[in-house]
Amino acid sequence: MYFKCENFQKVGAFKARGALNALLNLPPTSGDVVTHSSGNHGAALAWAARKLGKTAYVICPTTASRFKRSAIERYGGILVDCGPAIPQRETALQSFLQERDATFVPPYDHVDIIAGQGTATLELLEEVPHVTEVWIPIGGGGLASGAVIAANGRCSVVGCEPELARDAHDSLISGRRLPALPPESIADGLLSSLGQLTFEILHRDHVSVRLVSEDEIRAATVLIWQMLKVVIEPSSAVPVAAALKDDRESKTAIAIILSGGNVEPSLGV
Amino acid sequence: MYFKCENFQKVGAFKARGALNALLNLPPTSGDVVTHSSGNHGAALAWAARKLGKTAYVICPTTASRFKRSAIERYGGILVDCGPAIPQRETALQSFLQERDATFVPPYDHVDIIAGQGTATLELLEEVPHVTEVWIPIGGGGLASGAVIAANGRCSVVGCEPELARDAHDSLISGRRLPALPPESIADGLLSSLGQLTFEILHRDHVSVRLVSEDEIRAATVLIWQMLKVVIEPSSAVPVAAALKDDRESKTAIAIILSGGNVEPSLGV
Repeated sequence: MYFKCENFQKVGAFKARGALNALLNLPPTSGDVVTHSSGNHGAALAWAARKLGKTAYVICPTTASRFKRSAIERYGGILVDCGPAIPQRETALQSFLQERDATFVPPYDHVDIIAGQGTATLELLEEVPHVTEVWIPIGGGGLASGAVIAANGRCSVVGCEPELARDAHDSLISGRRLPALPPESIADGLLSSLGQLTFEILHRDHVSVRLVSEDEIRAATVLIWQMLKVVIEPSSAVPVAAALKDDRESKTAIAIILSGGNVEPSLGV
Repeated sequence: MYFKCENFQKVGAFKARGALNALLNLPPTSGDVVTHSSGNHGAALAWAARKLGKTAYVICPTTASRFKRSAIERYGGILVDCGPAIPQRETALQSFLQERDATFVPPYDHVDIIAGQGTATLELLEEVPHVTEVWIPIGGGGLASGAVIAANGRCSVVGCEPELARDAHDSLISGRRLPALPPESIADGLLSSLGQLTFEILHRDHVSVRLVSEDEIRAATVLIWQMLKVVIEPSSAVPVAAALKDDRESKTAIAIILSGGNVEPSLGV
């Protein structure tokens, strides 16, 4: 297997790609920016905004990973608290936009975000052209949609989701975009529903989604820490867990995008 | 700072270098091998022995890290239990050698081991020639002695030790090789005393040793996990902790050898 280590990316996650691309494509006169995010997109937007002399406001659940919340602040972002459910984020965003003049940069459902995330797969296929499948975690679907466009038929994209957050799996089978499930999975980057754009891209490309249990996610997280000696967050372990369950006796060259490393492992002593 | 990531080395530690070099320098007629090790040298010897069609016996404290003990077996080594103190290992080794025909491959106090470990610093200086200091954890002193020889005056070697295992520090100041302290530090790879050879090499080169507390080691371990996204074991965090305390306003180019990554971080959820 091949691993594209986006945990080594700026801000520790692929989200830096989309956020920077989106800001570079804003009109030159645009001012500060705002988003909602449980963590990595928020940190990425804060990082990209600082590079371009802007301020990023990040509407972030108070229940989000402490590590991810402090990263947003470390990169200069300003946290705006909200409740844990997705509708609560949306409400908080609307209130914010009524009070302040800022441009909303969505976490995934935007062409510039999707194009930016797609560069992870572009780089992977440049480096390992014989890859036939790229396995990718699906939250809002930005990374997977970007992969579909970047791959452009050169390899197939396999989506991977926690059973507890299987809305993309069910949406792509039913052909109808379903809302997110309650935020219960340890894979805290994969709790969103698909967006309109990302749903259309994944559906048109007949992307299938593999499901894994929470125990499988935990085991795969620790396995990667121990065997590769790289720190990944549980969301990144979802495709690892799915690939470990795949029982084809296959000669397929599988690549996995390790999407991020923003987690706080414990020394335990 | 520059980091030489020996946690990504075969068997997850620099010890693979010395063990393979030692076995390649044995007479062609030599048979199985034996060593005593709290972990990484044992796994390295098992790995190198298997490559060369030999069996490695590893005298290993039952109190050693479970992770390190299972790695020795995973690479085909055969565990021989002993007590935790260094003299207990020596006694167990002598009993073993009276019963079996095997060649003892010491963990550090041997020219081929030292030469092998020195290749880590050779590679580092090839890649980053302007480094002026290499900071290295000191257990038995093999890695640091190899560094002194490999550097050959091109840069200085700074040794680093836990306060709870400060025998190398005290030995090099007093000019007299002192025995190991009781095995109490979390840096489980640094509990040995210096060997005769390694003491002479470090003493002749006037290597100084920095000391760090257990809390500083713990904090530096987690810092590297979180910031570099690579898994290191506490022994590797000792020079990181020491460098963080260094308060020179220095333009010195410091490199740290991250000596190994054989540890079992916990997900905590």
